[in-house]
Amino acid sequence: MATQRQSALKGIVTLQMKQVARDEGRRAEEIRDGIARGTIAIPFNPRHKGVQAVGVGAGLRTKVNANIGTSADYPSVKDELKKLKAALAAKTDAVMDLSTGGDIRAIRKKILAACPRPLGTVPIYQALVDNKMTAAGMFAVVEEQAKEGVDFMTIHCGVTRRSIEKLKQQPRLMEVVSRGGAALMQWIIEHDRENPFFQDFDWLLEIAARYDVTLSLGDGMRPGSIIDAGDQAQLEELKILGDLTKRAWKAGVQVIIEGPGHVPYDKIAEQMRLEKRLCHGAPFYVLGPLPTDVAPGYDHITAAIGGTLAATTGADFLCYVTPTEHLGLPTAEDVKEGVIASRIAGHCADIVKQVPGAREWDKKMSKARKALNWGKQIELAIDPDKARQIHRRRKSKADDVCSMCGEFCAMKISSVALKKG
Amino acid sequence: MATQRQSALKGIVTLQMKQVARDEGRRAEEIRDGIARGTIAIPFNPRHKGVQAVGVGAGLRTKVNANIGTSADYPSVKDELKKLKAALAAKTDAVMDLSTGGDIRAIRKKILAACPRPLGTVPIYQALVDNKMTAAGMFAVVEEQAKEGVDFMTIHCGVTRRSIEKLKQQPRLMEVVSRGGAALMQWIIEHDRENPFFQDFDWLLEIAARYDVTLSLGDGMRPGSIIDAGDQAQLEELKILGDLTKRAWKAGVQVIIEGPGHVPYDKIAEQMRLEKRLCHGAPFYVLGPLPTDVAPGYDHITAAIGGTLAATTGADFLCYVTPTEHLGLPTAEDVKEGVIASRIAGHCADIVKQVPGAREWDKKMSKARKALNWGKQIELAIDPDKARQIHRRRKSKADDVCSMCGEFCAMKISSVALKKG
Repeated sequence: MATQRQSALKGIVTLQMKQVARDEGRRAEEIRDGIARGTIAIPFNPRHKGVQAVGVGAGLRTKVNANIGTSADYPSVKDELKKLKAALAAKTDAVMDLSTGGDIRAIRKKILAACPRPLGTVPIYQALVDNKMTAAGMFAVVEEQAKEGVDFMTIHCGVTRRSIEKLKQQPRLMEVVSRGGAALMQWIIEHDRENPFFQDFDWLLEIAARYDVTLSLGDGMRPGSIIDAGDQAQLEELKILGDLTKRAWKAGVQVIIEGPGHVPYDKIAEQMRLEKRLCHGAPFYVLGPLPTDVAPGYDHITAAIGGTLAATTGADFLCYVTPTEHLGLPTAEDVKEGVIASRIAGHCADIVKQVPGAREWDKKMSKARKALNWGKQIELAIDPDKARQIHRRRKSKADDVCSMCGEFCAMKISSVALKKG
Repeated sequence: MATQRQSALKGIVTLQMKQVARDEGRRAEEIRDGIARGTIAIPFNPRHKGVQAVGVGAGLRTKVNANIGTSADYPSVKDELKKLKAALAAKTDAVMDLSTGGDIRAIRKKILAACPRPLGTVPIYQALVDNKMTAAGMFAVVEEQAKEGVDFMTIHCGVTRRSIEKLKQQPRLMEVVSRGGAALMQWIIEHDRENPFFQDFDWLLEIAARYDVTLSLGDGMRPGSIIDAGDQAQLEELKILGDLTKRAWKAGVQVIIEGPGHVPYDKIAEQMRLEKRLCHGAPFYVLGPLPTDVAPGYDHITAAIGGTLAATTGADFLCYVTPTEHLGLPTAEDVKEGVIASRIAGHCADIVKQVPGAREWDKKMSKARKALNWGKQIELAIDPDKARQIHRRRKSKADDVCSMCGEFCAMKISSVALKKG
């Protein structure tokens, strides 16, 4: 079977392209063209039963990903299925299962079955947990997960001898903060061998093409502190990913590029533009970015601050950050908070990017607000349950205004005044 | 007694300028110079017992204000004192008492006595509540509050016949969303007279100079929907405020300019620059801005997104927005969330603005993080209680790493690997 990209290159508009076009208010031909040029990806593994096609890339609505998954300390499958439910209810566009605790194979299968959105993984985690850290072991895991239906996979192909050399030349405060990146760096140094995913990239492409797995080229060298942002190791890795992107495209494989991480606010735009240039316009998938390191407990807010700027200047796909980032594994409530914060960031950017329907949503809300139509305001809210709950908890005796201003409601007063004036 | 501005113009460095210089890591002469040029204000009414001097303006740390105050539906003094405590504990730089319910005079006195930070008010609220909406009544309230020790006052001098005319010429979705602005517009239209605060601006300056009350020139015409941002009424008001700023400066009165409001992300920077130009570099005090209207329940996050961009492009003072904005009166918990979100925004901007100490805070946090020093990380967190609570709630069996990655901690692995490599 052809991949989305192979079809696009042949001029074929697939069902998934049509679906994405409908969802985005675009023409199917625009989607096909974006996939052919590589600026759009549809992470859609035909083996993932029940998955809906979601487009990521230039001109499309900014998408949000929610990371879930167990750790050794919290290996409960039930908890992760609850988080999946919370993420879907909060309208995440994609989910990644980053499980590293318990029976991660069983957990992944359950999540795949219950997730109608593109599901991503980081296969190296399974190789680590299974203690199969050989080149053959790593590729076996990739193929196993591809067969199961995983739609996109983070592969840290850019953690190479060369990028590690750059890391040593320009020491960092935080070294490597990517789990997969750190594990691969350790492997490279210990075995004194090159990263198998880089060395045998063609093997990876073969598997990815066979199952139409979208490669999410991981940023193992992403900065973990704003102090480290934009250094040589990060830049070197991005260049490597740019080269690999062209090879993947040639092989008919869809690519997404992963990005930082911790970046000062005034460096975010330049980092987005750099990715677009070095990676030939491939969709950019960022983690945050976080423009400060000092707000553990509120990193969903910090990520929303950075994510909005990123998404207006090049990022297409925002990986959420939850309030528990840097402190522990999130709960279902944290997952929800993370998805909503990233959706707000994406939407603020979509207004700027003139994504069809974005501005109209705000217009509808403002009209409902002006009309003091509370039912409509709540219905239109990004999280109707939360809006309803607050409005009820802090209710007003009057039913038209809210409890903040009561009879001094500016909208009520100004409507009356202007009618007279 | 001379105002801070009168002293600055005479070349006198006051105790308050010295205090601000110490807090900001600047020379006192720089502060004096900023006040003389009008780019810095120290809202400090000598009658406010126990108040600390806080500087607002160019080159200084971005400041955060927390609005508290009763409404008709929630008139409890006790609740407001709880909110004051929450705001101070979250390290707000200033507080505004916007009470409109219950015995607002008694409430204000209690808040003033318990608030060691600059306290602001919107005197027109008292005129409204007391039903003293005459020119004399409005000025009497201003003088009464000045005598009590209020440090800065929002006065909507720019809601004039001319700006109302602009509003009528270019109709809006949301008309006027400022309570004070709406009340004054209503008064102007009903009485067919000019805004007393504009008409008799010299009278206002006399009172402000006598008590060294900083005038916070209100934006009654601020957009209440992103759709309305940057229209003629808003622009006209800003021009009027720019003219009044020069008159205030001549009279030795300190000025802060208030700004929006709801503004699309791509218009925020230009609005900040416009204020600096039209208002001659006067400190800019923004409410949000909110780059989307659709997130009631999360408007503290939306405000942090807009506030960061605003503060990197000209805003000096961020008025927080709480999660209950657009839904009801906040609780003490909402107040805390609002202050922290705005502080994150301000700090992200302060890193960019190279405010002394800003980047160093992040560096310390990153070092503690790298060292897996949890005590230090929590101590350095913007909200240590919240960070501690999450870290404990989601604790790991191992005591060096956290429960997200456990033994797969990237920082631990990369440290070990790089030592070997």
